Amino acid sequence: MQTDALQPHPSTRQPHSLIASDRVESTPVRRSDGSKVGTIQRLMIDKLSGNVAYAVLRFGGFLGMGQKHLPIPWSRLRYDRALGAYQIDLTDEELRRAPSFATDQEFDWGDRSQEIELHNFYKTPPYWGAY
Amino acid sequence: MQTDALQPHPSTRQPHSLIASDRVESTPVRRSDGSKVGTIQRLMIDKLSGNVAYAVLRFGGFLGMGQKHLPIPWSRLRYDRALGAYQIDLTDEELRRAPSFATDQEFDWGDRSQEIELHNFYKTPPYWGAY
Repeated sequence: MQTDALQPHPSTRQPHSLIASDRVESTPVRRSDGSKVGTIQRLMIDKLSGNVAYAVLRFGGFLGMGQKHLPIPWSRLRYDRALGAYQIDLTDEELRRAPSFATDQEFDWGDRSQEIELHNFYKTPPYWGAY
Repeated sequence: MQTDALQPHPSTRQPHSLIASDRVESTPVRRSDGSKVGTIQRLMIDKLSGNVAYAVLRFGGFLGMGQKHLPIPWSRLRYDRALGAYQIDLTDEELRRAPSFATDQEFDWGDRSQEIELHNFYKTPPYWGAY
């Protein structure tokens, strides 16, 4: 008996609007020219609002930099079907300057001033509303 | 040189407000009496708004029911430190009736009428705003 099972009703079907967290994790991030910037490691979720605040990008140790993690505001990422990746156009110089943390550190700031700095860097409005 | 590395500033430190997606995945869900209901399988994220819409609960095949997945509105889950689990008080009867889908199906409705039914069941306002 699966009377309560949820089946798609073809008549009311809309474009997919949901994506699974474990599908975002390990998705590559590329520039629009196809060059790889890194891979999504995890999402950081604001517990109170339930907003996805950041995608944490694992950055692969090129440009003379070691491995590090870059939190990127979720609103800055667009999935590009042709690239098969999230797309963000950051220059090498921007990648060098981007707010980051070491891979062996846990990202859990609890420090709004750093989050403001980060949103300024990416020129996006903050996920928690106004400054 | 880690001049741009983000370090916590003790003076401006706030209570942690962010949680990692891969930490939520595999977290148990229990009733307030400690009995286990299931385990979080993944989060479903609304692509447009960046809201976490649902936690998908893997339900372990008791109560004479096979394994199935229950999408639970994120706003209905509270992490309970003492339980070491997300806490939700659903009776056996409610678990039988709760909207669910088979474990071998992908949860990706694109069907708002089913989502309304689900939010009615859990008596929560919808993540997309008003009906």
